[in-house]
Order: sequence, then structure tokens, then C-alpha cells
Amino acid sequence: MKAVVYRGARHLGIEERDPQPPGHGELRIAVAYTGICGTDLHIYHGDMDARVGAAAIIGHEMSGRIAAVGEGATGWSVGQAVTVMPTRACGRCAACRNGNSHICHAMNFLGIDSPGAMQSLWNVPAELVLPLPAGLPLDHAALVEPVAVAVHDVRRANVTADEQVVVVGGGPVGVLIAVVAQGRGARVLLVEPDAFRRALAGEIGIEAVDPGKTDVVALVDDRTAGAGADVAFEVSGSAAGVATAVDVLTTRGRLVLVAIHPQPREVNLHRFFWRELELLGARLYQRDDMAEAIRLVASGVIPARQLISRVEPVEAVAAAFDALAGGGVMKVLLDLREDLR
Amino acid sequence: MKAVVYRGARHLGIEERDPQPPGHGELRIAVAYTGICGTDLHIYHGDMDARVGAAAIIGHEMSGRIAAVGEGATGWSVGQAVTVMPTRACGRCAACRNGNSHICHAMNFLGIDSPGAMQSLWNVPAELVLPLPAGLPLDHAALVEPVAVAVHDVRRANVTADEQVVVVGGGPVGVLIAVVAQGRGARVLLVEPDAFRRALAGEIGIEAVDPGKTDVVALVDDRTAGAGADVAFEVSGSAAGVATAVDVLTTRGRLVLVAIHPQPREVNLHRFFWRELELLGARLYQRDDMAEAIRLVASGVIPARQLISRVEPVEAVAAAFDALAGGGVMKVLLDLREDLR
Repeated sequence: MKAVVYRGARHLGIEERDPQPPGHGELRIAVAYTGICGTDLHIYHGDMDARVGAAAIIGHEMSGRIAAVGEGATGWSVGQAVTVMPTRACGRCAACRNGNSHICHAMNFLGIDSPGAMQSLWNVPAELVLPLPAGLPLDHAALVEPVAVAVHDVRRANVTADEQVVVVGGGPVGVLIAVVAQGRGARVLLVEPDAFRRALAGEIGIEAVDPGKTDVVALVDDRTAGAGADVAFEVSGSAAGVATAVDVLTTRGRLVLVAIHPQPREVNLHRFFWRELELLGARLYQRDDMAEAIRLVASGVIPARQLISRVEPVEAVAAAFDALAGGGVMKVLLDLREDLR
Repeated sequence: MKAVVYRGARHLGIEERDPQPPGHGELRIAVAYTGICGTDLHIYHGDMDARVGAAAIIGHEMSGRIAAVGEGATGWSVGQAVTVMPTRACGRCAACRNGNSHICHAMNFLGIDSPGAMQSLWNVPAELVLPLPAGLPLDHAALVEPVAVAVHDVRRANVTADEQVVVVGGGPVGVLIAVVAQGRGARVLLVEPDAFRRALAGEIGIEAVDPGKTDVVALVDDRTAGAGADVAFEVSGSAAGVATAVDVLTTRGRLVLVAIHPQPREVNLHRFFWRELELLGARLYQRDDMAEAIRLVASGVIPARQLISRVEPVEAVAAAFDALAGGGVMKVLLDLREDLR
């Protein structure tokens, strides 16, 4: 079996290893495709060395087939198509006790805190594995995890039909949020400065505007008879994105904070007070979000084919990471299928 | 009849005027007591001259009795004890159309945008008048409006029994929030640097700590087995208050933003993301909040007697404003009862 091993900043090795048998309650998955996420890119750039151990196997967006069923894992069969929910809560911390185990304070995130999906055979606790429906192409299924993020974010805002939604930031998560919200019947406007991303959004039926050329607040006011947007998603991670997301909202509008802002941001709290706005932090997903994501990918609501810009063989992993960092792509997948090579 | 007239910064005159008959659908109210609010103090200091007209009659926290019933106002009787909800929505703006008329964009706020309660006879549209129950002392009833603010804020967070609540800022609204939340069975901690306010809070059964001497986050962690508070109210208006309110919260904790922050504030958005926190702006109140406030004052849940620091005759209005600005008092009322003088 092959494994992509992170050896330090901008250094990924490919190793041939002996497969380990699945442990008690585990499934051995023959990984088909693994997506490269923004977090993987951060790791690749050396920004997460304090958390990611030496010789780590990263990757957490994937699809595959069961290759072996470990002792104690029941109800599974070899050959079954599956994906993995890569979050393992501790069950003991305050978040878990609080009913929020999906944002466990001591989360074991597969692909960050423990070995991930950039290996052709991956042993995973069965309780984290979800079956995929027949007929769902496995490359498309590698999008389920990021789609679950988008589903969680849209659910956090409880977006309903005919609501005006503004998504600030058109990377993979922003675009998926736009698609999921539009799939619920919302009127969606995507705000994204990058021309490639705007063009791709347009191809899949999402209206996208350039904040450098369009007065987004005026446009939304015009669309809503002066009321403002019901929901804004901040997915840009920028100070300007926060300001736009606050300024477009109507009274009691909901701002879902999806992006990571490492530094504190200036926020117009007076507008939160004056319009009784709501800010909702949103992170990761719950099991229901994964299940809904599988349904959305399988049913074609998610235009998976258009969103997957490139599929690279595992041997080209470094080039795949560099391509993602360079822009001009949306999702990039690694092909880890062993039997085809 | 007497009227307190704002003539410019730090200049309040008392005028003897001829009473005007109530207009169609109006009630003439013989005002008993009018509370002085922080907003009134801002007006007095000249900070709101752009909004408050020349020769304005301010005041919006009050109690009184019906002195005359205008044509078209039915179901009211002379002598009936009443208070006033001093907010009149336009019914046409985006907020009103949106179902949020209580924060109407073109609100006519009685006592700011049109004549208020610092006059011994006040004509008010009947639809803004609420009857008071028998036996409720009229000085206590002058607290109904600020209590309605607190009720609205506590409802915004949906505070439930046994939740850990932190109120940052122990002025009149902060203390009332603490009382209302504690009345719902929550465990309440008030954070207030002023010794007088802390002592008063203690007298009415609210635990209060000095943020200069107590590590509030550590204390709340200790009280909640490391989880954090379920709800925080930011009522201080300070940058430090915002930071404390964010830092004390548990996963999915709710921060209700009550205070006015004229300038943008730095906010730890990463914590909002990481813990899926919620920020809820809260302003004014709805009619249900006024009705609940009347119940709470009448039933004694609100310790009105202890909260009313001074009652001054209307002739001493300037001294009353200066006393409020000087500190060492909680609520200050003006006595406008004509028949007793």
C-alpha cells in the first residue's frame, strides 16, 4: 500500500508500506479518492506543525470501498462503497457533556491528529464510516465531507425558501454553501474577487459579483426593496468580508461565521444592536449533516463534476498541492485506487 | 400644567403651560412619576441635539392616571392607572414589513422624537397606553419601561432555569437583566467595577464581582466544571466588557448585546467559530415585554423600592440629572403629581 507522508513544510513523501490488519471495531478501507482541503494546504505549508505530528498521514475528504471488516464491526461487507466522518469526539469534555460533541474540545480529527486518508488502505473505526448509495461515483463522493460543512452552515442559519442569502467568499466551502442554500430555494448572491471562481460559480448557476466592482450592499438593498439580506455567510476570512457580511443584513438578519479569523476583527456592534442582528459561529458538522451531504451529492444537487477541477495520481501529490495553492482550481482530488495501477 | 423643557446642553427649564385637549384616539395622562434614563442623560449633556428638537419635552419611563379620554379612544376610564410604551412604529419601513416593528427604522420615540413624559399632563395615543393592575404603587410602576428592556433581552437569549448567566455591567438595565434572569431560575453573576452598584446588587440578592479584583473567566469556569456560561449580557458598553462576555461563554453560548457601542470593537471571532458562539443584538422591547414587565413589577419580582434611589420633585430636575450623572444612585424619579403640591 502507498501512503503520503508529511515530513515537514512543503515536503510530502510517498512511502510503500505493509498494510496493517484492521483493529477491533475497525474497517479497512481501500481509499479511492482523497480531496485536498485548505487545512491540508496549511499543514503542507508548515503552519500546523505544533498539532500535526512527525511523519503524519494527512487527508480527511475521501471515498473508498471496504477491503476488510475487523472483529466486532458488524453490518458491513467487503466491497461496500463508503465515506468517513473524520471527527472523533472524546465524550468527556465540557462540549461533549453539553451536547456539542461535534465541536469537542479534545477532538481527534482523522488526518490531523491521527492517520488520515492519503493512504491506499486506511483502518477506521466503524462508527465513523457511512455507507454510500449505489450508483454514486466515488470521485463525486470525495466531496461529501466539504458538502457536510456547507450543510451544517446552512442549517445553522436555518435558511428557508425565498430568503435572500449573501455568501462572502467563493472558495470550495463558500461555493458549496451557495449551492446548498440555493437548493433550499433561497436567492443567493456570491461575493468573490477571483475571476476564475466567479466564472465557475456562474457555470453552476450561482450568481457571483466582484466586490471590487460592485457595491454589494447597494445591490442587495436594490434586490430586497431596501430591507437587506436575511442571511450572510462569512467565508472569506478577511476584515472586508466581515464588514460586508454585517452591512448587507436586514433586521434580525443572521450572519454565519464560517471562516477562520486568527486575529480579532473590528465589528460594527452598533449595527448588531440597532438591527438586532445575529452572529452564529459554525464549525465542522454533525452526523446528520454528513447523511444530508451524501443525499445532496448522490441526487446531483451538488454539481460535483464541475467542482472537481483536477484528479491527480497519488504520485503527483506535491504538484497537486502546489496547483491548489496557485489558484485557478476549485477541488483537487488524489486518485489512490491501487487496483487500477 | 408643568413641563420640563430641554433648551440645550445642561439647560432644562420648567414651564407652566396651558394643557391641550387630547386629540382623536388619545388619552390625556396625569403623569405621576417619570424616571430619568441614560438616554435622557445623553440628551441633557447635548449629545443628541441632532435628533432632539429645540424646546423638547423628554422622558419616557413613567406612570400616571388617565385624566381625560379623547374622542375615539374606547375602553378607558378617567382615574385608571397606566403606563406608556413610548415607541411608535411607522408600519411601512423594511423593519416593520419584516415583522420587526419594535425596531422600526423610522421609529417615533416619545420623549426623543416627540413630546415625552416630563410634563404633568401628557396626551398619548391610546394604543401605546397599558393599564396597570390595582395596588401597584405608581412610583414602582415608573420602572416598567426599563424592566421591559430587561425582559426583552432575557427573552432574546431564551434564558432557562439553572443556566449560568453572566451580566457584564451593573447599571439599571444590567441589574434588571440580572433580576429577570434570576427570576427565571438562572444562576446569575453580575460583573461591575463600581462599589455602590455591587453593594446594591448584593442587597437585592444578586451576586456581584469586581472585574478589577476577580478573574471572571476563571470564576465562571470554576462554577461550571470548566464549561463556561450559557449566556452573557454585554451591558457595559466597554471594550473590556465585550472581551469578558465572549471569553466566559461555553460552546454555543449566547451573548446578548445590549449596550451601545458607538465605535467598532475588536471581537475574538475565532472563539465564535471554534465554540459556535452566538451574538444576539437586542434593542427596546415588544408589547409582550411591556406586559411581562408590568407583571414582574406588580408581583414584586423586581425589587422596585431598593432600585429607586431618589424621588425628586419636578422643580429639582436639574439636580436630579446631575445626581444621576454623579453616580452613587440607581434609578432617579421625578415626581410630577400636580394634585399633591
